[in-house]
Amino acid sequence: MAVDARGKAHVIKLRPGARFETHHGYIAHDAVIGQPWGSVIESSLGHPYLFVPPSIADLITHIKRSSQVIYPKDSAYILMRLNVRPGARVLECGCGSGGLTTALAHAVAPHGHVFSQDVRADFIALAQRNLERVGLAQHVTFLHGDCTQGFPVPEPVDAVFLDLPTPEICLVQARAVLKDGGFFGALVPTTNQVVNLLRALEQARFGLVEVEEILLRRYKPVPERLRPQDRMVAHTGYLVFARAIVKPLPTPPTADEAEPTDLA
Amino acid sequence: MAVDARGKAHVIKLRPGARFETHHGYIAHDAVIGQPWGSVIESSLGHPYLFVPPSIADLITHIKRSSQVIYPKDSAYILMRLNVRPGARVLECGCGSGGLTTALAHAVAPHGHVFSQDVRADFIALAQRNLERVGLAQHVTFLHGDCTQGFPVPEPVDAVFLDLPTPEICLVQARAVLKDGGFFGALVPTTNQVVNLLRALEQARFGLVEVEEILLRRYKPVPERLRPQDRMVAHTGYLVFARAIVKPLPTPPTADEAEPTDLA
Amino acid sequence: MAVDARGKAHVIKLRPGARFETHHGYIAHDAVIGQPWGSVIESSLGHPYLFVPPSIADLITHIKRSSQVIYPKDSAYILMRLNVRPGARVLECGCGSGGLTTALAHAVAPHGHVFSQDVRADFIALAQRNLERVGLAQHVTFLHGDCTQGFPVPEPVDAVFLDLPTPEICLVQARAVLKDGGFFGALVPTTNQVVNLLRALEQARFGLVEVEEILLRRYKPVPERLRPQDRMVAHTGYLVFARAIVKPLPTPPTADEAEPTDLA
Amino acid sequence: MAVDARGKAHVIKLRPGARFETHHGYIAHDAVIGQPWGSVIESSLGHPYLFVPPSIADLITHIKRSSQVIYPKDSAYILMRLNVRPGARVLECGCGSGGLTTALAHAVAPHGHVFSQDVRADFIALAQRNLERVGLAQHVTFLHGDCTQGFPVPEPVDAVFLDLPTPEICLVQARAVLKDGGFFGALVPTTNQVVNLLRALEQARFGLVEVEEILLRRYKPVPERLRPQDRMVAHTGYLVFARAIVKPLPTPPTADEAEPTDLA
Repeated sequence: MAVDARGKAHVIKLRPGARFETHHGYIAHDAVIGQPWGSVIESSLGHPYLFVPPSIADLITHIKRSSQVIYPKDSAYILMRLNVRPGARVLECGCGSGGLTTALAHAVAPHGHVFSQDVRADFIALAQRNLERVGLAQHVTFLHGDCTQGFPVPEPVDAVFLDLPTPEICLVQARAVLKDGGFFGALVPTTNQVVNLLRALEQARFGLVEVEEILLRRYKPVPERLRPQDRMVAHTGYLVFARAIVKPLPTPPTADEAEPTDLA
Repeated sequence: MAVDARGKAHVIKLRPGARFETHHGYIAHDAVIGQPWGSVIESSLGHPYLFVPPSIADLITHIKRSSQVIYPKDSAYILMRLNVRPGARVLECGCGSGGLTTALAHAVAPHGHVFSQDVRADFIALAQRNLERVGLAQHVTFLHGDCTQGFPVPEPVDAVFLDLPTPEICLVQARAVLKDGGFFGALVPTTNQVVNLLRALEQARFGLVEVEEILLRRYKPVPERLRPQDRMVAHTGYLVFARAIVKPLPTPPTADEAEPTDLA
Repeated sequence: MAVDARGKAHVIKLRPGARFETHHGYIAHDAVIGQPWGSVIESSLGHPYLFVPPSIADLITHIKRSSQVIYPKDSAYILMRLNVRPGARVLECGCGSGGLTTALAHAVAPHGHVFSQDVRADFIALAQRNLERVGLAQHVTFLHGDCTQGFPVPEPVDAVFLDLPTPEICLVQARAVLKDGGFFGALVPTTNQVVNLLRALEQARFGLVEVEEILLRRYKPVPERLRPQDRMVAHTGYLVFARAIVKPLPTPPTADEAEPTDLA
Repeated sequence: MAVDARGKAHVIKLRPGARFETHHGYIAHDAVIGQPWGSVIESSLGHPYLFVPPSIADLITHIKRSSQVIYPKDSAYILMRLNVRPGARVLECGCGSGGLTTALAHAVAPHGHVFSQDVRADFIALAQRNLERVGLAQHVTFLHGDCTQGFPVPEPVDAVFLDLPTPEICLVQARAVLKDGGFFGALVPTTNQVVNLLRALEQARFGLVEVEEILLRRYKPVPERLRPQDRMVAHTGYLVFARAIVKPLPTPPTADEAEPTDLA
């Protein structure tokens, strides 16, 4: 990853003989190969570029997209709430461009596995290419199919995540392949979708339902004038989490009144 | 983990013959053992308890504490920004009660490793017990020592995280054990501490500095009356991230003016 | 208003011969009368109390309540968005305890007027007493009646504010007494109520609809350790604003895509 | 005010014979004069424009600017916290383009008065023109001068507001012209400025200090897809409020620990 003096980042693959072309001149890859990470190398026009290895968040942010990608602030929290860990088996439906798939594959490696289903073959093709580019494709099985027809995973999974406009249409199917006590999550952009999803979760053997939103506020890192950035991303989506239960609860936990401190 | 009808969670270890005592009667562990996860079991006084396996976030939230624990909203984002992945080697200074240590160990297992240093032996003892309780102690080496004297790790690490009131006092030492291009993070509660840390980072061969804050807003999960909770945790701390660079930048990236979209 | 050393405020009416009784001793009103505002006077047990005149926000915060009061952060913004100014004529429906009524009366005095309607006589009685207590009752006419039966104001008003659970039931009636081009506002706590109100506004000759939320974040005012308070009020309600138009718009302004900067 | 189908607003002064020129054709002012407010009138190219009287917030948002204007979300709250009401006498220092001056003049009319001081004659000239344009100039006296030399107001004022980069340089001067118990406010963009101001307030006979931030979150007003706007203004400035006291407090109110609920 090359970062210019204004903070703009470019993810490139270093190859002997190749050139990194910029608006401010070029840099021969050979000038970078062999240098320690964290080095500054100038372009042919004298502009400095800082070379550092990209994080998984950087890779996800820079993947080729056909649709909105899940932001790192959200995907980080999703991984935590779905208890995604090395060795876990996770089903995702709605692979998009493979952004969250990448984060999931990264977190379950080397012994876990991700199943990623989508109804659109072009999304799967794009996501697959993106996973191959970052070397994580062996941890993912893509499934092409309609979620209302179920999820053909070989055995129950530890966690399910739905990134669909109407996740309520396949809750029963999701519950069917989720281990008892397993972790459920979904991301939807509007309050109407949250309402629809909440109504369906009550029916589909899910409990401990929570609705949350993650906001990221960035500051200008200037010690003499510390202050928030002028503008921020104000909304990406509402996160809905639940747990797979055996049968509907007798008295459903009134999370309405429960103290939020405990699991915050 | 047993969750009562009001949403309150208790983390317990199931042992044949033991009893889970509550304010609303008891439940024999034997009544739970063998039931599928996600089952509801009633206490001796007829109160329902839902049993689900705890997530790592649940475990961290319920560990024995001697100090403020890092919230899941923050630790999830820290793991993502420090690129903590299976196989990574991470140094943490300021182990507290072992909350973040637990999340780090969980994420680097089975082949990675966490080094966790603290100047206080009692904190290390508590953190160690907490790691043993959740079965992750083999992935962690605790180091007892003063951070200004350096960090005795066997080889450079991929990432360093400082959870100290004055992280600026050991930045040079942290940089010395961090790989070139490696990931740096710190959490401090006040703006004054952020200012002091920013000043020191400029001197200590760190670049691409970012200051961020994660806010979690929770909603009442009632489909007929969807609305945010009345109160929320408004502040835990400011997160400061940076990358290890080889020498100070000629023209420092003016993150001041850089577009926030790219890495958001 | 007397403020103790911990910041807790008490609104009292000074009368010769009376006593201000506290948990930490008493103060004779005569010891306060004649002192300059901003003086500190000690109680009989030596506790210091700072005496300052209350602001209208202080008065509203300390009125006798039978229901949730609108917070100053919201009522301040409502006054601004409804263009409430000296001389304006404003209709409010849902007087509650008279908190917003007080703010409205304060802002339209001396030549404007507030009409405040409620279906509950006991709320009107309480609001009236609260208005009398702060000396603003002469600027308010209370109307006892059902909003679906209309609002018996003598002539069209400049602005209407609805503080009702189901404001959509009286939109036509509200529009009937609102000047063409006049200002409309409502406060509702849940997203479901916002959705219902938005649907009804489209039908009832209102345009330029906006939905907003005001968040107040408070900091600990300690110069050496500047940081936000640990907890905050995370939600009071959603504010919906609109303007009275003559007939439904041909192409409704797609506020959906409009730039937010202009009227922000 | 003319609002186009995309929500963009234009503030114009209607004059017989004049034309309102837009990117989408023109509208003769004579076609608007005599129509009821809230009417939609089409431009010569068939684009609809909705005509409504501007609110004071609209006027402030559209004034000619030489500098950053204080946003309505902030100015509304400032008016409330400084107890600005009809008849009040208020001093402002740092008139900018006259945005807050306009809001103050609007709120104190018809019997109150605003004093607005600035060290730059060009700012005063601009602010004066803006006040004249909206017909509020008779309620304002502009003072040209350096704040460290004091404020030449004829008698003590009810409230003082400082919109300066370094408000701490004229706190003693501000206190000198503020009534005992009077209201103080300031707006500064950075945390460093807040820290400096807090330190100085402690020395200058101010008490009950509070630091706050107002955030405005806007929603897309679409009933079928209710959700926040994608981006928001994340920061305008920190608001600092205090009260004029007679002498420094014996034990300063530790707002640090005080419950925030009371005056929230």
